[in-house]
Amino acid sequence: MNQSDLSTFRDFALVCASAAAAAIMPHFRQRMDIEDKGGSHGFDPVTVADRTAEQAIRALIETHHADHGIEGEEFGLVRADAKYRWVIDPIDGTKSFMAGLPGWGILIALLEDDLPVLGVMHQPFIGETFEGDGHHASYAGRLGRYRLRTSGCTSVEEAILTTTSPQLLGPAENIARFHAVESHVKLSRYGGDCYGYCMLAAGHIDLVIEAGLNRYDIAALIPIVEGAGGVVTDWSGGSALNGATVIAAATPALHSQAIALLEN
Amino acid sequence: MNQSDLSTFRDFALVCASAAAAAIMPHFRQRMDIEDKGGSHGFDPVTVADRTAEQAIRALIETHHADHGIEGEEFGLVRADAKYRWVIDPIDGTKSFMAGLPGWGILIALLEDDLPVLGVMHQPFIGETFEGDGHHASYAGRLGRYRLRTSGCTSVEEAILTTTSPQLLGPAENIARFHAVESHVKLSRYGGDCYGYCMLAAGHIDLVIEAGLNRYDIAALIPIVEGAGGVVTDWSGGSALNGATVIAAATPALHSQAIALLEN
Repeated sequence: MNQSDLSTFRDFALVCASAAAAAIMPHFRQRMDIEDKGGSHGFDPVTVADRTAEQAIRALIETHHADHGIEGEEFGLVRADAKYRWVIDPIDGTKSFMAGLPGWGILIALLEDDLPVLGVMHQPFIGETFEGDGHHASYAGRLGRYRLRTSGCTSVEEAILTTTSPQLLGPAENIARFHAVESHVKLSRYGGDCYGYCMLAAGHIDLVIEAGLNRYDIAALIPIVEGAGGVVTDWSGGSALNGATVIAAATPALHSQAIALLEN
Repeated sequence: MNQSDLSTFRDFALVCASAAAAAIMPHFRQRMDIEDKGGSHGFDPVTVADRTAEQAIRALIETHHADHGIEGEEFGLVRADAKYRWVIDPIDGTKSFMAGLPGWGILIALLEDDLPVLGVMHQPFIGETFEGDGHHASYAGRLGRYRLRTSGCTSVEEAILTTTSPQLLGPAENIARFHAVESHVKLSRYGGDCYGYCMLAAGHIDLVIEAGLNRYDIAALIPIVEGAGGVVTDWSGGSALNGATVIAAATPALHSQAIALLEN
């Protein structure tokens, strides 16, 4: 993609994020009707805010980029064969949102030939946006505007680690592999959702290890972390895009060490 | 205490919170020098922000209420025999703060004859304040001003539960007792710190269960939760003020059910 198209798509992603924010904010910290989408498989809340926001983004794509594909959490996939595809998670961190906590965000990614080339995380309650294109990443919000760069951490023993919840890592073997890394780190913190990856891009967290994500949970975060100098893969070093397992690290050296611990 | 004194002390607590915020904010999301206070017993970070903020609050108390006691996380206890004592946690959620996450807050409590009669939680990055006096609690911030009221949740099966981290609950027996409750709730979420109690006061969370807290971690939150209609005790139904074990619930009925599960 040339820089002009990239710039156009970036501006468009920010417009989409603002439209989603306008749909979501009236519902934040209101008593909501919650629908249990997960059924007996677990609690996966769907809110009115989630659906309204995704519809707002989809309407903008249909108006301005009608030949692009769309893949969203709530309303599935259209134009699967398109060269460009927008991947949307209108509220990443739905549980945080339901609990009134600020650690959620709107995630919008653009894929080109199934590779993530642009990602935006927008948090409208706090008022901040993280964006990246794999080569560059930046912050805009209450603390001004600046380029995002990961920390220089190259040692698991010095690392600050986050995961949304060990219970979300899936089978016991995954949890054991996570704890093999966790037992070495300087500090471990739960409850991050998309903020874990954004704070890794900003240099405050060094390592994020998760599993059982969906494509729309991770697609937007890959270009942000990579744009800030970090590494994002699955637990075997392959593409993290399907979300089955994800490890994000501040530096290649830290990434290698953590992968080695995960594999033991 | 009469209403006039209460009102004076409330305004003073808000001034203290603002002074702490001014000391803290230049350090948020900056690379900080971290000192490991916990030594071999675990990681308990102390930041420049923490110390500077507590010093700012202490200076205000010495100037305006020189006969009041002070108990703070960083600089200990003065005037232990005073009728009134200010209990200060300049940054509750230090790990969140270090990781750049927004889920931390400034906690200021006033004890009268060792009972918490006033509590303030202030979050200067987001810009919101929760306060209560045991009979009334209120919110002021980005979403306006309103009275805080807990949810009407009376059933563990319908409850949203939070704890900062199961690993912080202490001995394995405590963790097992926590999971006995967690296995019954609708949704469980980790990583709350002081926000868990404030969102309980606001009606978005129904149950908070923690252990191993200090007085300064919980003192300010008791008058907020009680002022919003909730119940805060230790796991046996006694005073939560020493922080060894804490359970906060939206309603007396929910509190009784959760205590029964903790005791099994």
